Amino acid sequence: MTRARPDELWPDVRPEAARRLMAAAVESFAERGYHATTTRDIASGAGMSPAALYVHFPAKSAVLFAISRNGHERTLAMVESIIAADPDPVGAMGTLVEKFVAWHAKRHVVARVVQHELAALPPDDYAVVADLRRRTEQLVRDLINRGVEADVFAVPDVRTAARAVLSLGVDVARWYSPTAKPSPTVLGRQYAELVLRMLGHQP
Amino acid sequence: MTRARPDELWPDVRPEAARRLMAAAVESFAERGYHATTTRDIASGAGMSPAALYVHFPAKSAVLFAISRNGHERTLAMVESIIAADPDPVGAMGTLVEKFVAWHAKRHVVARVVQHELAALPPDDYAVVADLRRRTEQLVRDLINRGVEADVFAVPDVRTAARAVLSLGVDVARWYSPTAKPSPTVLGRQYAELVLRMLGHQP
Repeated sequence: MTRARPDELWPDVRPEAARRLMAAAVESFAERGYHATTTRDIASGAGMSPAALYVHFPAKSAVLFAISRNGHERTLAMVESIIAADPDPVGAMGTLVEKFVAWHAKRHVVARVVQHELAALPPDDYAVVADLRRRTEQLVRDLINRGVEADVFAVPDVRTAARAVLSLGVDVARWYSPTAKPSPTVLGRQYAELVLRMLGHQP
Repeated sequence: MTRARPDELWPDVRPEAARRLMAAAVESFAERGYHATTTRDIASGAGMSPAALYVHFPAKSAVLFAISRNGHERTLAMVESIIAADPDPVGAMGTLVEKFVAWHAKRHVVARVVQHELAALPPDDYAVVADLRRRTEQLVRDLINRGVEADVFAVPDVRTAARAVLSLGVDVARWYSPTAKPSPTVLGRQYAELVLRMLGHQP
């Protein structure tokens, strides 16, 4: 497995040691699963002692939570800013799918861990992540509704359509492999075209 | 978690003890992950001794392989029979998506384990499952190609379109919850409509 690059994955996380621990945790979780990974595995993967890990994270679950929350906050922010930047529902949806798909292709190892291990989060942490997911889904639903009102989209069921749009993007993390074609960017564009048709848009 | 019902999940597996072990394994894998599950966990979940497990499966990985191969063989057979039964690409694709989606919604716990733990299969077992997946994907690609030739589908890229069709269905196992609406059958119908549009079909 390719080693995740902490600075690229979490440019917003400080200090650098926390980022390194998160990257080592992703690697172990992806390889063995969350439950079979120990804090010692994570610390040694980051070239640190278990005691040094506890300076940054009180428990293994806190590392998983940091990874999961960061990913969900950043996708929510991405979706928000794309929608805010383009008043046209068709344009906004096209960009949203393009970026959301490319994001999950580029970061497929992290995204896969985040999706797989959701159920391993402690209840309070899960609630925070579930809320971020709900808000992202609500934005996509609102965007589809706006398109339906503007007569540029036509769907049998807005809730199912929003689910399908997000599902296509999230599932890229499951099947994507960097050795496979197409590139994240090209895949994003192809998916954007497929989704716009799915939403009943007639170019 | 709801306990999987071995007779419903694997009507074709004999003897009944093997089915019970497979159901217990699904439950443990779903809860703790494959790596953190022991053969003792599986045996005791099935109300059996570890020695009794070895009568049916030589190792923990053999239980995972039995679950995974069975699921992939049955979805491949389902896709084959649907395509053989309907010469019309639109009709066949509609039925295929309807059944494939409903299958993944109804069996979401098993399907989730199968998808999550693919990488845990020993190489030879993985090769068998990968071959079943390739054959299923090839059937979907051939069907889309047939639709394109008959001028009832129009897609930018057949490979990506086939990937998207299967991805939508497989990912249902990740997000589906039996307490959520709609029912597997209704979801299957809604998705069939979305997919036909995605493939450029104009009713």
